[in-house]
Amino acid sequence: MKIAIIGSGYVGLPLSIAFSKYYSVIAYDINQKRVKDLLKGIDSNQQHRKKEILKKKLIFTSNKNLLKDNDIYIITVPTPIKSNNQPDLNMLKQASILVGKIIKKNACIIFESTTYPGCTEEFCVPLIQKFSKLKFEKDFFVAYSPERVNPGDKANVLKNIVKIVGANDKNTLLKVKSLYKKICRSVYIVNNIKVAEGAKVIENIQRDLNIALVNELSILFNKLNIPTNEVLKAANTKWNFHYYKPGLVGGHCISVDPYYLAHQAKKKKFFPKLILSGRRLNESMGKYVAMQTVKLLKNNSLDFNKSRVAVLGFAFKDNIPDIRNTKVIQILEYLRKKNIKFDVFDSWVSKEQVKKEYKIIIKDFKYFKKNKFDAIILVVSHKLFLKKLSFYSKFYKNNNKKIFIDVKNNYSIKDLNKNNFKYFQL
Amino acid sequence: MKIAIIGSGYVGLPLSIAFSKYYSVIAYDINQKRVKDLLKGIDSNQQHRKKEILKKKLIFTSNKNLLKDNDIYIITVPTPIKSNNQPDLNMLKQASILVGKIIKKNACIIFESTTYPGCTEEFCVPLIQKFSKLKFEKDFFVAYSPERVNPGDKANVLKNIVKIVGANDKNTLLKVKSLYKKICRSVYIVNNIKVAEGAKVIENIQRDLNIALVNELSILFNKLNIPTNEVLKAANTKWNFHYYKPGLVGGHCISVDPYYLAHQAKKKKFFPKLILSGRRLNESMGKYVAMQTVKLLKNNSLDFNKSRVAVLGFAFKDNIPDIRNTKVIQILEYLRKKNIKFDVFDSWVSKEQVKKEYKIIIKDFKYFKKNKFDAIILVVSHKLFLKKLSFYSKFYKNNNKKIFIDVKNNYSIKDLNKNNFKYFQL
Repeated sequence: MKIAIIGSGYVGLPLSIAFSKYYSVIAYDINQKRVKDLLKGIDSNQQHRKKEILKKKLIFTSNKNLLKDNDIYIITVPTPIKSNNQPDLNMLKQASILVGKIIKKNACIIFESTTYPGCTEEFCVPLIQKFSKLKFEKDFFVAYSPERVNPGDKANVLKNIVKIVGANDKNTLLKVKSLYKKICRSVYIVNNIKVAEGAKVIENIQRDLNIALVNELSILFNKLNIPTNEVLKAANTKWNFHYYKPGLVGGHCISVDPYYLAHQAKKKKFFPKLILSGRRLNESMGKYVAMQTVKLLKNNSLDFNKSRVAVLGFAFKDNIPDIRNTKVIQILEYLRKKNIKFDVFDSWVSKEQVKKEYKIIIKDFKYFKKNKFDAIILVVSHKLFLKKLSFYSKFYKNNNKKIFIDVKNNYSIKDLNKNNFKYFQL
Repeated sequence: MKIAIIGSGYVGLPLSIAFSKYYSVIAYDINQKRVKDLLKGIDSNQQHRKKEILKKKLIFTSNKNLLKDNDIYIITVPTPIKSNNQPDLNMLKQASILVGKIIKKNACIIFESTTYPGCTEEFCVPLIQKFSKLKFEKDFFVAYSPERVNPGDKANVLKNIVKIVGANDKNTLLKVKSLYKKICRSVYIVNNIKVAEGAKVIENIQRDLNIALVNELSILFNKLNIPTNEVLKAANTKWNFHYYKPGLVGGHCISVDPYYLAHQAKKKKFFPKLILSGRRLNESMGKYVAMQTVKLLKNNSLDFNKSRVAVLGFAFKDNIPDIRNTKVIQILEYLRKKNIKFDVFDSWVSKEQVKKEYKIIIKDFKYFKKNKFDAIILVVSHKLFLKKLSFYSKFYKNNNKKIFIDVKNNYSIKDLNKNNFKYFQL
C-alpha cells in the first residue's frame, strides 16, 4: 500500500514520519522552501529532529507527478480564516482539486484538516468528483480523521493519542481504522463523517469558551480588586472544576475553529451567540492588556512619548516558534497607536518571518539587557523569560516606577510587592 | 467549644451532624416543620438517615434563645434569586441580624451560603455590627467557607471534600481551619474573604457555561441533522475534553449563582456578557424541549386538543426529591399554552410541595401504566424511568405515532429506530 500525504506542516510531517515506518510515503508540500528544508532533515517548526525526518521510505516533494499511483491520500492542509473571520477554504479546495486530478479508481482519501461539519461531503467531495470524473462511494472513498496536533506538547503526540476515524461506509471505516491503528494508541470510529468533523471542531470551541470565561472573570475581578489567579486556584480544589488560565488566545486552532462552526451555523440561519461572544471576548484581550499597561504608565505620571516598553514574547504559545494568529500583535498595535515605543524580544520565532508577515522587528533576548525600560510586559512564558524578579528589577529607568505586566501570572503577589513593582496580572 | 448552625437544610444538616461528633451543636432552623421532622430523625430531603440525625450532642430547635452563649456561629441559609433574577438576600439579612443580636465578644461567625464576592464584608458584617454594637475584627471575627453540597452525590460528601476557608486575619483563619480539618478531607486556606466567595461562585458559573455550550451545540447539530451525543462522545476521546451533556439546568446552585456574580459586576458597571448569555441559553431549554415535542405532534398530524403527553420527572435532578428551580415547569407551561393535556409522573418529589409551589398535580409512576399517550417526554433520569423502550412502546394511543422525547439521551438511536419511535434527543 502506498500513501501520499498532502501538506508537510505541523500535521502532515509527524503523520508522514509515522506512516513511513510501515509504508512508502510521498509527502507533498506546495512550499518548495519547506520541502528543501525537510530533504535536509530540517523542521523549521522545531517539532522533529533530523534522525526522525530522514527515512528510507519517506520522500518529500513539490512535484505533483509523484502523487500518482497511490492508494491512500491524506490531506493535512491548513484551514485558516480570512481577515473577516470567514473560513478560508482555498487550500482545501486546491488539495481536493489536486487529488481529483490524479486519483485512480478505488482510491481512499482521508481528510485531517479541521473544518465545519458538512465541509468534507458538501465542499471537498464534489470537487474531487468533478476533477476525477469518478463517483463518490462507488469509485472512490472518503474518510475524515481529525488531527489532534498540539504544538510544543511532547506527551500528546500522534502515537499516544486516540484518533477519531469517521466514514459513511463500513469498508472505508475498517480500512482507515486499521491504517491508523498502526501509528496511534487507539482508534475511535464513528460511522458518519459529519460526527467526526463535529467532534474536532467542538474540542477547540470548548477550550476557547472556557478561556473566554476566565478572561471575563479576570476583567471583573480586576475591577473588584480580587486576584483572579488566587480565586482560580481555590476553585480548582473542587472535584469537578477545570483550571483554565486567563490569557491571549492565538494559534491555528482555538482562535480559528469557532468561526468554522459559526459559518456553517449561519448557513442554517442559526446564530451561535455563546460561541461567538466567547470569541469576541478572547479577541479583545490583547488590547485589554495594553490598556492596563498604559493605565499604569499614566498612574505613574510617565510621559508616553518618552516611554519605552519591553514586550517579552511574540509566539502564540510558550516554548515554540509558532506565530500563527499571535495576539501579541494586538498589544503592539495599541502601544503604537498611543505613540509608545516598544522593543519585542523572542529568541524562538523566526525574525525574518515576523518581519515579513507582521512588519515587526524581533530581537534576541540577549539584547534586552542592553536597555532600560519604563514597563516590561511578560506575555509569553518562554523558559528563557522566567527569571527572578530581581533580575528584571535591574532594567528599569526609574527604580520607583517599575511597571511589570505579568500576563501569565508567573509571579506571586508577595514577590511583586517585595520587589516594589507596579504590576498588573491577568 | 460550642457551635450554633443557622439553617438545617441541605448544607446545615450534614454540617451539624459532622460537628456533633466533636462539639455540642445547636442546629437552628426557622422552619418549625423541618425542626419537628429532624427531632424525629426524618430528613425530608432524603440525604440522611435517622441514625445519623439523632445524636446526643446535636439539638434541633427553632428557639432563638438557645443560640446564646455559643463560640462559633455558622450560617447556612439559602441565597436564592427573586423572580427578576436579582439576589434575594433576605434570609442572609435575617441570619446576620439574628446573630448580631445574640453574639458576645470574641464570637466567630462563619458564612457558608453562596454569594457574590464582597457580600460578607459589605452586606453581612455591617448588619452584625449594627445589631451587636460590636466591632468587626476587634470584637468579633468572620470567615467564609463555601459549602460544596451536591444533592444526591454520595461520593463528594462533606468528609471527602476539600473545604475552602477564607478570612482576612490570621488568627481566625487558623481557628476555622482547625475546626473544619476535623470533619473534611482537607482544608484549603485563602487569606481573603472575597477570594473564598469568588471561588465558590465561579465553580458553578463554569458548570453553567459549559452546559450552555453543549446546549447551543445541541440546537445547532439538531438543525444540521447530526446526533449531538455521538459528537460529544467522540470529542471526549481527547485528553483535555470535558464531557458535559445538554439538558435543563435547575436547582439551587448552578442556575442561581451566575446571577449573584452578575449583580455585583453591574454595581461596578461591568456587564458579564458571556456569563449571562450562557444563563439565557440554559433558561430557554425547557421551552425548546417542549417546542420539539409540539413539532413532532404536528409532523405526525396529531390534534393538540386531543393529545395527551406524559412527562416523566419533575425534580431538577435524577434520583432526588429536590424541586428547587426545576425547569420541567417550563415544558409544562409551554404545553399548557398550546392547550395540550399532560400528566406528570415523579415518585421522588413531594406531591404536596409541588402542588403548593407550582400548582401542578404529580402522580406516582405506577399510574403511568393506566393510561395511553401520544407523546412521552423523559426529562429526569430517575432510575425508575430507565425501562426498556419496549416497555414504553405499550403505552401509546397509536402504534405508528410513538413520539418519544429522550431529553437525557438515555437510549441509542439504533434502539429508538428499532422500536419505531418518532424521537427527539437533546
